Amino acid sequence: MSLFKSVALIGKYKSPEIAEPLLRLAAFLSRRGVSVRLDTYTAEQIGHNDYVVSSLEEIGASCDLAVVIGGDGTMLNIARMLAPHDVALVGVNQGRLGFLTDLSTETMIESIGSILDGNFVTDSRMLLESDVHLHGEPLRKVLAFNDVSVNKGADGSLIELEVHIDGRFLYNLRSDGLIVASPTGSTAYALSSGGPILYPSLSCIALVPVSPHTLSNRPIIVSGDAKIEITMHKSVDARVHFDSHSRFELGEGDRIVVRCCSHPIRLLHPEGHDYYHMLREKLHWSETL
Amino acid sequence: MSLFKSVALIGKYKSPEIAEPLLRLAAFLSRRGVSVRLDTYTAEQIGHNDYVVSSLEEIGASCDLAVVIGGDGTMLNIARMLAPHDVALVGVNQGRLGFLTDLSTETMIESIGSILDGNFVTDSRMLLESDVHLHGEPLRKVLAFNDVSVNKGADGSLIELEVHIDGRFLYNLRSDGLIVASPTGSTAYALSSGGPILYPSLSCIALVPVSPHTLSNRPIIVSGDAKIEITMHKSVDARVHFDSHSRFELGEGDRIVVRCCSHPIRLLHPEGHDYYHMLREKLHWSETL
Amino acid sequence: MSLFKSVALIGKYKSPEIAEPLLRLAAFLSRRGVSVRLDTYTAEQIGHNDYVVSSLEEIGASCDLAVVIGGDGTMLNIARMLAPHDVALVGVNQGRLGFLTDLSTETMIESIGSILDGNFVTDSRMLLESDVHLHGEPLRKVLAFNDVSVNKGADGSLIELEVHIDGRFLYNLRSDGLIVASPTGSTAYALSSGGPILYPSLSCIALVPVSPHTLSNRPIIVSGDAKIEITMHKSVDARVHFDSHSRFELGEGDRIVVRCCSHPIRLLHPEGHDYYHMLREKLHWSETL
Amino acid sequence: MSLFKSVALIGKYKSPEIAEPLLRLAAFLSRRGVSVRLDTYTAEQIGHNDYVVSSLEEIGASCDLAVVIGGDGTMLNIARMLAPHDVALVGVNQGRLGFLTDLSTETMIESIGSILDGNFVTDSRMLLESDVHLHGEPLRKVLAFNDVSVNKGADGSLIELEVHIDGRFLYNLRSDGLIVASPTGSTAYALSSGGPILYPSLSCIALVPVSPHTLSNRPIIVSGDAKIEITMHKSVDARVHFDSHSRFELGEGDRIVVRCCSHPIRLLHPEGHDYYHMLREKLHWSETL
Repeated sequence: MSLFKSVALIGKYKSPEIAEPLLRLAAFLSRRGVSVRLDTYTAEQIGHNDYVVSSLEEIGASCDLAVVIGGDGTMLNIARMLAPHDVALVGVNQGRLGFLTDLSTETMIESIGSILDGNFVTDSRMLLESDVHLHGEPLRKVLAFNDVSVNKGADGSLIELEVHIDGRFLYNLRSDGLIVASPTGSTAYALSSGGPILYPSLSCIALVPVSPHTLSNRPIIVSGDAKIEITMHKSVDARVHFDSHSRFELGEGDRIVVRCCSHPIRLLHPEGHDYYHMLREKLHWSETL
Repeated sequence: MSLFKSVALIGKYKSPEIAEPLLRLAAFLSRRGVSVRLDTYTAEQIGHNDYVVSSLEEIGASCDLAVVIGGDGTMLNIARMLAPHDVALVGVNQGRLGFLTDLSTETMIESIGSILDGNFVTDSRMLLESDVHLHGEPLRKVLAFNDVSVNKGADGSLIELEVHIDGRFLYNLRSDGLIVASPTGSTAYALSSGGPILYPSLSCIALVPVSPHTLSNRPIIVSGDAKIEITMHKSVDARVHFDSHSRFELGEGDRIVVRCCSHPIRLLHPEGHDYYHMLREKLHWSETL
Repeated sequence: MSLFKSVALIGKYKSPEIAEPLLRLAAFLSRRGVSVRLDTYTAEQIGHNDYVVSSLEEIGASCDLAVVIGGDGTMLNIARMLAPHDVALVGVNQGRLGFLTDLSTETMIESIGSILDGNFVTDSRMLLESDVHLHGEPLRKVLAFNDVSVNKGADGSLIELEVHIDGRFLYNLRSDGLIVASPTGSTAYALSSGGPILYPSLSCIALVPVSPHTLSNRPIIVSGDAKIEITMHKSVDARVHFDSHSRFELGEGDRIVVRCCSHPIRLLHPEGHDYYHMLREKLHWSETL
Repeated sequence: MSLFKSVALIGKYKSPEIAEPLLRLAAFLSRRGVSVRLDTYTAEQIGHNDYVVSSLEEIGASCDLAVVIGGDGTMLNIARMLAPHDVALVGVNQGRLGFLTDLSTETMIESIGSILDGNFVTDSRMLLESDVHLHGEPLRKVLAFNDVSVNKGADGSLIELEVHIDGRFLYNLRSDGLIVASPTGSTAYALSSGGPILYPSLSCIALVPVSPHTLSNRPIIVSGDAKIEITMHKSVDARVHFDSHSRFELGEGDRIVVRCCSHPIRLLHPEGHDYYHMLREKLHWSETL
């Protein structure tokens, strides 16, 4: 028996090498009496089999757990897409373990078996939800798991933007860009640009300027409840990126409004999972002196 | 009439120049029907007068508001001492406005008048409370408003320390020091050492290494509920400082345990007070491009 | 009499407001017996007059001093264009003084008068000269006064590049970009990205990564004699910028080779000019404690 | 035959474990017809033997090469002491290779054999020479290989100091400290405090503030010919450290004058030695993407 009745398996896009571990995991789940589904793109990669194939939409509606086999990039994509649904996520990595994909294909059977038995910790992560206003018109909502980043474009000039937090003026910024990062994203692009590491369960958002003209424009941490509004000044050439998965060209007066999304992501880890252990591994902190 | 019945006036230590604004404010408060008290050290500075003189202890027990006239350093000291009592604080600065002392002596009568009328915003700030364990013995609790910092001592060698958060091992750190900062302290020593600015009402604590040997030992933000435990390795020569007001020599095995204090500090500001405005002023961010 | 026989006056592009100080300066120079030339674009801005109008090419061939009236951006452009010629440069700024334009329109008559008398200090600055190799073909040489910067493009992904110094492998870099800066450029884009300030007469080149993925990829200072070779990895989308004045799209295998240019720029300043004074002004270092 | 006639062997202080490799190397050198000397402290560590024992002073006067077996700390000490003499240095490390000790005990016989054959590269390194003026009196000259650092003392307060370069005022600095680093020292304490990496043969000196109060007080690189003068303001409690090997307490008005020493250090490396390779190893830069 399993705590989870219906489990989806989702592999890295265009990566036939995930077929072996994925089918091995599918067989294990079936033996445990779990109903297994594969997502459409994954099914195309792994050759003929008898598992039910579903769209991510259908997986969201019918599964209570999704196992993602790939790297952190795959997890970011799948997490955003499943966010509106109440599906827990587990990440399996074929290579070096990631921040979000902390199981290895070698030990996943044992780890996921434990999770099915109910031995897991739940790690709830904030998503960012943005409204993009172009030419004065609201365009649509875009989700980001790591970060929303406004960057200079091809002509290489500094961009100028204005930031309001909860309706209050923060600053005019002249820089290469501005990263609005969730705690999950604090160890990604924001860290490279001088931002701090935010413990993942914090309800906080980091604003991290990229190469700011004014040296005292340092990273700022605000509440996860804050509404962050970025308005483009006379920027001839700027863009906004969401987790590097989608982007919009920005012109003068265009606005991005970023908030915490009401649906968090629910990551599951085996009991004993330790965020600090993972930080030490990923950032090469020596454990001994 | 005033919302506050009993107001203490506390001036910068050994600073007779505060006599004029302080007596002017005292007269104003008396005219408003407020009971005025002066703290003992302040009374000594300002010459003969008829106001009631009390210890800080008595002020804590009897006043519902204390006005501190001095700089941020004075406010840090007074806030720590009044923390166990339920006294709101207002800061007046004679020179350049501070992060905590945001009224000027020029406009204080009007501003404090408004506050007495009930027109104010309350700004609740976390204090840090530390247990110092020397030679295996718990010594005593020490409060800090800005930060607890462990630093190398006179011989100039790197110190080595071990950090646990909520009982979990974070890292062994080799550095000049480690700053544990409250949001209030994030704009002080921690900022100079590469830490981010934390919005003051956040329930977060920043860990900021000073000149860490490992370059990836970046600032980390943890929950305000976290218990941070620092244990000294074979450090021949280290010290811990609390807001630079008190310190202890540390030897091998000595421990500091830092937590959020259960008593927050309650700062009052005139309505319309804007933290971001103050940041822009203090950090010289240009408001126009 | 004047030490300089033939002086060119060059104004900020499309800026008719420079007409007044420029004509005032021209009249002064004529009275001093100096032959005055205006560059073609400048002449168009300032209305009818009787001064000789020449191309920058002709100015380079015939003048021994050029006075640039504008900001640092104008000076960067003119300096690059006059670099092959032996023309000394003086910079006049209408607004806030710049790093390169250190005379004000208010005091320029007196300052330039002194310079004509031979009372000046010469400030020799390195230019960077780059060979751009696209699709395996050498394209052409491009000069930069501040910096050569390789940056990610519109799709917002990290770029990957390989750096060799004097034929020796330095590193593979994953980052938003890499800035190769002259000492003059060390206070511009490179400073915003974490680089140090290089004293302007040093024969050194700074390599400053922008938002590097590996946190230990810190700025590196190499000899001014070094040959710096940057080769693009499988970067789907990158660009190289020269002082933000010209750029090229870069693809896999494209190379930029940066060296010190054999022609330095010769800036003249009034006697008593002090680089450190200017640094303090521009970076808002307080002179008093 | 050997290019070097007289070679000194110097081991890490109080480290009997260097006896085995040291005696192995001594035997090899004797077989090559080289005259071998041991320094006094080293001889005490390694048990009875027939090699000539000399003070470092005598070694300086009589040897043309010294092999240091230990870590970078040992090399720093020996290099400073032998600096006034014309003795080349080779560093052997028993553990992880250092910046200065780049031979391993496993391969030292082959490497040093090659060096004796004349197959080596010479790596000339700048030393810093300081005059310490206490209470208005010149005290004595102190050498440093890595850095001269002024640091706050036990009371934990910011220190205030004034810096002049070649007699010109640079700034008043409020900070935890100021590091004056040679290119060799640029990868040590200065790197931890935000300084850049200086290629070791550069004639440059880095000024790196530690936790400066003013965020725009960034690292500055000046010429190796510069005279750097540091004067203490009303610092109640400061110290100056030289390579962490010696220190002086500093009070108000005390001065340190730092210059490039006229005797460089001559390090020898096997042919093919590559500084960038060592940087990649020590800073964990990945060679592949």
